[in-house]
Amino acid sequence: MEHNREVEIDGNSNPIQISRLALDIGGSLIKLVFFSRNSGDDEDPPKDLVGVSSGVNGRLHFAKFETAKINDCLQFISANKLLLGGGFQHQENCTNDRSFIKATGGGAYKFSELFKEKLGISLEKEDEMDCLVTGANFLLKAVNQEAFTYLNGSKEFVQIDHNDLYPYLLVNIGSGVSMIKVDGDGKFERVSGTSVGGGTFWGLGKLLTKSQSFDELLELSHRGDNRAIDTLVGDIYGGMDYLKIGLSSTTIASSFGKATSHNKELEDYKPEDISRSLLRMISNNIGQISYLNALRFGLKRIIFGGFFIRSHSYTMDTIAVAVHFWSKGEAKAMFLRHEGFLGALGAFMSYETHSLDDLVVNQVMPLPVNASLGTDTNYDPLKGDLNGTESIQCSVYRA
Amino acid sequence: MEHNREVEIDGNSNPIQISRLALDIGGSLIKLVFFSRNSGDDEDPPKDLVGVSSGVNGRLHFAKFETAKINDCLQFISANKLLLGGGFQHQENCTNDRSFIKATGGGAYKFSELFKEKLGISLEKEDEMDCLVTGANFLLKAVNQEAFTYLNGSKEFVQIDHNDLYPYLLVNIGSGVSMIKVDGDGKFERVSGTSVGGGTFWGLGKLLTKSQSFDELLELSHRGDNRAIDTLVGDIYGGMDYLKIGLSSTTIASSFGKATSHNKELEDYKPEDISRSLLRMISNNIGQISYLNALRFGLKRIIFGGFFIRSHSYTMDTIAVAVHFWSKGEAKAMFLRHEGFLGALGAFMSYETHSLDDLVVNQVMPLPVNASLGTDTNYDPLKGDLNGTESIQCSVYRA
Repeated sequence: MEHNREVEIDGNSNPIQISRLALDIGGSLIKLVFFSRNSGDDEDPPKDLVGVSSGVNGRLHFAKFETAKINDCLQFISANKLLLGGGFQHQENCTNDRSFIKATGGGAYKFSELFKEKLGISLEKEDEMDCLVTGANFLLKAVNQEAFTYLNGSKEFVQIDHNDLYPYLLVNIGSGVSMIKVDGDGKFERVSGTSVGGGTFWGLGKLLTKSQSFDELLELSHRGDNRAIDTLVGDIYGGMDYLKIGLSSTTIASSFGKATSHNKELEDYKPEDISRSLLRMISNNIGQISYLNALRFGLKRIIFGGFFIRSHSYTMDTIAVAVHFWSKGEAKAMFLRHEGFLGALGAFMSYETHSLDDLVVNQVMPLPVNASLGTDTNYDPLKGDLNGTESIQCSVYRA
Repeated sequence: MEHNREVEIDGNSNPIQISRLALDIGGSLIKLVFFSRNSGDDEDPPKDLVGVSSGVNGRLHFAKFETAKINDCLQFISANKLLLGGGFQHQENCTNDRSFIKATGGGAYKFSELFKEKLGISLEKEDEMDCLVTGANFLLKAVNQEAFTYLNGSKEFVQIDHNDLYPYLLVNIGSGVSMIKVDGDGKFERVSGTSVGGGTFWGLGKLLTKSQSFDELLELSHRGDNRAIDTLVGDIYGGMDYLKIGLSSTTIASSFGKATSHNKELEDYKPEDISRSLLRMISNNIGQISYLNALRFGLKRIIFGGFFIRSHSYTMDTIAVAVHFWSKGEAKAMFLRHEGFLGALGAFMSYETHSLDDLVVNQVMPLPVNASLGTDTNYDPLKGDLNGTESIQCSVYRA
């Protein structure tokens, strides 16, 4: 599967006007968020908005690249003229316009020189945790049908009351995992994390299955059966439950425990079974550590983000079941449709003036960002291309 | 490395008298504990013991086999006449003597028929958690130089005041991991666990390195460097720390994160680096989950047992550092010299009459089991054979 080819935005080959680009350069992936102005937009605000002087209608777009293929990303930015947008000025001081872009993640430091050299722009670095929290808060408050629960294979959208949003635990699963207790806008603390994350799934999975991409590995897991590799309680107990401590015979006693078998080599196991076992091990582990941290701080809501999840049913199911199991139903796992772009959205909102952040967060009625998603059914998380359903319709206003 | 060959007990080829055998049959390993009477012992109790009518001096022996090679274990029991000991009767009712042995672990259920068929004995099943706790309490109370801390490469024996022993968190790392809050003799609750344990290390390690045994895999890790496989914070941040959230450039951001690299296959990584990375990932993860559970219940002391550890310095160091790091020095990791035999010891003590358990636990002065270990320096955890330094000198008394 090829993710990083240059694509037409919104399937439209007409030139579009791009304004404002922000990046989140992580250990595995580069995430881009940018705004495109609707063609022919006259900058008049919609009639139903009051107290806002002017606005630009358009869409927020999302794209991703592997960090190892950063040159493809630079090429994409050039080819799509993402630095040349004239839809609106995001700086009062026009002399600095387009000379920098906001960026977060470790790569904003690591690749600073490369961006300067190849594109002639500076990366203005924003704190990674700050951006994750800002991005998550924006999505939770401003975008309809963004957050959902997932349990027993059923997805349910949740509109969270803004007054009842905080505190929550934000778990961002990138290459590694950060766990952040969020108490409000800009009020947060990174309370924990684990090195067993998306990079572990992809790294171990690549070594074990020779999959060529994260998505290929994830797709393998669809068809796999972890019972071929994991030791279940029943395998140890001769098919019996160990009910005294609440473990059924189908509980995983030891992830990859069956792979200790003497007469089998790596080649004797199906890649799909390995992928499934790995996915379950990591998802379950993250769910458990997340729950234990939520418990420490009395947080009932755990919101999972980051590119590991990719709206993948089995991943979400495993995480949700882990949280449900360990908390005995007390804590709830929630997921976000734009899960992978929290940091990039946060960086996008950190532009100082006329920011979406200011408008969205400070105004409740009416919503200054009229955000909605495309049709749900067309959304294919395994398809990494830019497409209309991944973008958010919105308007950006001048103060 | 060969662990399961028949061996001479105590390096002595003379016949010895064996009394009482107990088994812990786990998902990966079978652990045996048995008592041998000293030759020429006249059953007189040592002079310094008061209030005990008679005793037998001897040694507690420990042995292990892979569960997959259970026939070797059966052969060992036969060859060493472990069911025929005449040193003392452990049942008032002699007619039942030797017709059953105490056993715990899932295999006590799974292999019940096999023992009946091959050795003509029944396995009297004891609850696994009960046995772990009984075994740990016995070691902590009765055996000198049993418990120790490990930090910054330095091992320090701790003699725990019996009045200050409880509560503690017992973490038994076998194929999977059980976490048990221990409040007293027979007073405990299994509060958590994880499927990422010894079976995961061995299973994944075997697939990735083709090591033929757990110990071979562990030995590989000695020479490995996890930085070849793991993504460090500095790798993402271009060599910089991320100090704002307390992560140094050398912190592991993503275990196996570097293995996502496009131009490398499994064969391009050194087995020793893979083993080290795996060991660190799993040890660190167990340390973290253990700490979070200790925190829930306000437990300051976490005692790690189970065959995963094998007195291996790097494993203990990683676990101890994880507990220290996450608890900011508040909680302490402790280890046990006979770590792998908690369940088997517990089963051993569950014989109803004249049990070590009764005697040891109910009498404080003088210690009715005069337990001591052989020389420390000869102890080689990677050498799985029975040998004198693994056994415990002790006396068993009749009431």
